[in-house]
Amino acid sequence: MAFELKDRDLLGRLGKLKTKSGEIETPAFMPVINPVNQIIPPKIMKSNFGCDILITNSYLIKKNFETVNNLNVHNLLDYDGVITTDSGAYQILVYGNVEVSQDEIIEFQKKIGSDIAVILDIPTGWDVPRSKVEWTVEETLRRARAAIPLIKDDKMLWMGPVQGGKHLDLVAKSSKEVGLMPFDIHALGSPTEVMERYMFSVLVDMIITAKRNLPPDRPLHLFGAGHPMMFSLAVALGCDLFDSASYALYAKDGRYLTNQGTLKLENLNYLPCSCPVCMSYSAQELKNELRSRRERLLAEHNLYVCMAEINTIKQAIFEGSLWDLVEQRSKSHPAMTTAFKKLSDYKYDLERHSPAFKGHGVFFYDYNSLNRPETTRYLPQLLHNYSKPDNVNTLLLLNAPKSKPYNWDLEYKKLEKILVNELDLKIKDIQICFIAAPYGCIPVELCETYPLSQFDIAKPFDSETISFTINNILEYISNYKFPKIIQLLGNEDLENLVEASLMEKSPNVDSKFFSVWSKEPWSEASYNTLLDTLKM
Amino acid sequence: MAFELKDRDLLGRLGKLKTKSGEIETPAFMPVINPVNQIIPPKIMKSNFGCDILITNSYLIKKNFETVNNLNVHNLLDYDGVITTDSGAYQILVYGNVEVSQDEIIEFQKKIGSDIAVILDIPTGWDVPRSKVEWTVEETLRRARAAIPLIKDDKMLWMGPVQGGKHLDLVAKSSKEVGLMPFDIHALGSPTEVMERYMFSVLVDMIITAKRNLPPDRPLHLFGAGHPMMFSLAVALGCDLFDSASYALYAKDGRYLTNQGTLKLENLNYLPCSCPVCMSYSAQELKNELRSRRERLLAEHNLYVCMAEINTIKQAIFEGSLWDLVEQRSKSHPAMTTAFKKLSDYKYDLERHSPAFKGHGVFFYDYNSLNRPETTRYLPQLLHNYSKPDNVNTLLLLNAPKSKPYNWDLEYKKLEKILVNELDLKIKDIQICFIAAPYGCIPVELCETYPLSQFDIAKPFDSETISFTINNILEYISNYKFPKIIQLLGNEDLENLVEASLMEKSPNVDSKFFSVWSKEPWSEASYNTLLDTLKM
Repeated sequence: MAFELKDRDLLGRLGKLKTKSGEIETPAFMPVINPVNQIIPPKIMKSNFGCDILITNSYLIKKNFETVNNLNVHNLLDYDGVITTDSGAYQILVYGNVEVSQDEIIEFQKKIGSDIAVILDIPTGWDVPRSKVEWTVEETLRRARAAIPLIKDDKMLWMGPVQGGKHLDLVAKSSKEVGLMPFDIHALGSPTEVMERYMFSVLVDMIITAKRNLPPDRPLHLFGAGHPMMFSLAVALGCDLFDSASYALYAKDGRYLTNQGTLKLENLNYLPCSCPVCMSYSAQELKNELRSRRERLLAEHNLYVCMAEINTIKQAIFEGSLWDLVEQRSKSHPAMTTAFKKLSDYKYDLERHSPAFKGHGVFFYDYNSLNRPETTRYLPQLLHNYSKPDNVNTLLLLNAPKSKPYNWDLEYKKLEKILVNELDLKIKDIQICFIAAPYGCIPVELCETYPLSQFDIAKPFDSETISFTINNILEYISNYKFPKIIQLLGNEDLENLVEASLMEKSPNVDSKFFSVWSKEPWSEASYNTLLDTLKM
Repeated sequence: MAFELKDRDLLGRLGKLKTKSGEIETPAFMPVINPVNQIIPPKIMKSNFGCDILITNSYLIKKNFETVNNLNVHNLLDYDGVITTDSGAYQILVYGNVEVSQDEIIEFQKKIGSDIAVILDIPTGWDVPRSKVEWTVEETLRRARAAIPLIKDDKMLWMGPVQGGKHLDLVAKSSKEVGLMPFDIHALGSPTEVMERYMFSVLVDMIITAKRNLPPDRPLHLFGAGHPMMFSLAVALGCDLFDSASYALYAKDGRYLTNQGTLKLENLNYLPCSCPVCMSYSAQELKNELRSRRERLLAEHNLYVCMAEINTIKQAIFEGSLWDLVEQRSKSHPAMTTAFKKLSDYKYDLERHSPAFKGHGVFFYDYNSLNRPETTRYLPQLLHNYSKPDNVNTLLLLNAPKSKPYNWDLEYKKLEKILVNELDLKIKDIQICFIAAPYGCIPVELCETYPLSQFDIAKPFDSETISFTINNILEYISNYKFPKIIQLLGNEDLENLVEASLMEKSPNVDSKFFSVWSKEPWSEASYNTLLDTLKM
């Protein structure tokens, strides 16, 4: 297997991809190199930008350099890293056709020594009738099948593209069928228009559909994705490779990439970046440069930003904070937020692939954070793992103390002592739970476990977070059917909302509900009322 | 006046501060320079990092170099930019006292040629009894008064510090009184502990309280603020200057700053940054460097990040996107989100100082964006500027089309034509409004004005955004008391919620409410029903 998994977070993965020119780490961004004209020399890309892999176009190489003796793509580009070659499919998308057959371009890619190559698929495009989409899917599959005998015996890695555009049933079919064929890498086709139109939520659907239907042990490449603001989202959904010429095309057009969007150089008075270019030039100096020099500098800046974002993503997967990164980037544009909200539809996919323990604290910023794997898995795991002993007939609900772990809180320790010693009650007859957003009920026994010992949530809570929390509490209660529920109430808003819900709902779950009002620090009077209620 | 305002956004400002060593732009970050030992030479800070201003400690200079002939702080540090000197007040905070009087240290700062200097104030500190806080405020004010005769006749700029800590009434008093004295700059004291404890929402209260009570035409310095993740929030609240040694102290401690928080070098497998250091070294290489070299490189990285964040903030003020930047940075930590939510308490302060037109599109990510100035000012301005002509007795509510400006929508144009021509109805008898979150009612006449022609909002809307929108609609309706309200209903959730609210509330506002169901594109049948309802 050419692809080896090193780490994961959400559907994102750190991997190693072995090629005949060496091993690269994924996720990886492949800058598109124009074989005829390089704005930044590939050798410099490797030494100064850390680009260990790039992509160029075998169709354009064939058109321009076919007659060169012993043509080799590494020599042609003066680059000893890993080279992917595209097949001309992009030219089909743009010009409708190319002057080459699939057999020819496959042989040509083998001949010039590509490390990773693509068959000549038919990109779906955008705004095309369904019948045309169906044809692109079928024809791409037919070509994939036809390619197999030609590609099976070499050390190159071959990409099997997935088509179907926004038609998710066709994406699923395309993925399933190409996934049965012996390709090393899969590639999701033609999201360029989706990205140009900022339809990132459609892209979320497309990627997840492909992932659900492709073999999970093969890397997934997202064709034409070149904006750093969406890399982390795409990685979180399971993409391992990206390619784009945007760093150079945007530079030609005076556009300046950031991981939060695109700015126009003409509108910049300051350079909002720490890259070597932006630390050497002021905005005015950059604007005053000669056109070709300015383009080169902008392309360098754009590439620095892309490469830094890939490193940011890798570090986030490594430390288990990919969700946080995606949430930060979701503020790039409302369309990115819309896509981020879409993750709620796929929270079980994200949960299933995320490791249970990363050690990194779990942060809840607002209701969007409720779709984090740590929240998704909490209640099902709790209900699955914990069975209430028969003698436990009382649930005691306490408001969560300010510091964690909750059971180390001095006020709680005092209460526990009173319950155990002073009134001859056996604490094991009582289930004590802390009420905390967003988890709901946190049994005292679990307070020191991850992530319950290590989470932070912003205040005040929003409506969605409150509903979610109360819902979790009600599910917990209705599952265990405690005959008696007692809530020790303080002054927090959340507690009062929980009390109101319990008052209303407890008859339905056959529990008797009592609330004992107190204030923090808990007073002796409230302890006495609590103990009386416990003994009732 | 030494301070000149160039641009503003929220309470943030781009300014020019004239000093005897030249002009600097604000907001500015002043790295703290240890006069005895510089991890990065100040000259290099200026040439490579763009640091035009720095801060050092006159008390430490006095202790170590007092005997030097013709002592001059610019020569001592080999730096020709602007030099601020602190007075030893920080040492009072840490050690309780200093071996120098205020008169001595003021004279010393004058003698060594500081450009900006501070009187010897008494920092409030944290967790001190109120009586002690009161004393620090009073004593600082006494010293400020005592300093005036000593500082009035030179070209230096003098800072008048504000104390009071988290006691907002004392911060207000301190600000008001020192603001009456002839200082050039004010400085909000000792927020270090607040920041170390991540109590950013307390900091929001402190800064706003100071701003409300200080002369608005003087720059405000925030003492000891050195984390780039909170610079934009502090600037948005009106801070113009920052100083901190954190770039160097964190480096000593192996901590790596990012604009989203702090990471430990030992936990880094990848360097999530595009700065010259991070583009030249891998995480492993950095870890393997000799201790002193590693500290220098980390300090350089930390300083690059701070300086890039200041440029990012300046660009955001320039283009009018400071709110967006603060919203992005609010995802650094839940405590930053809590502070960001606190802005809802101060939305009128933020609105009052923001320019009406910046040309930058307005983005709504979620309910937190509702506190943007553009939203805060919309309804009051609408109600203030528009008076309903007497002959207008019908309000027609339409769902907002997908593209802006809404009145260019083809379906809308068709409807308008029908209303004007085909049925002999005069359109000026009817007020047509589009329903759009979060603004509520957008009169057709305003569709092409800023920001109504240029906003984007993420979907689906959250509960708070829906309530806000419906509330705005109800306020609009109850203000103008239309005898008849007709809503042309499609399939959007928001419309249906609006309909339900209007059904319930319209009797209270003396309007007759009708809804006409349609689907998009609007059908002839629904037009006919609409026209019938209009004629009723």
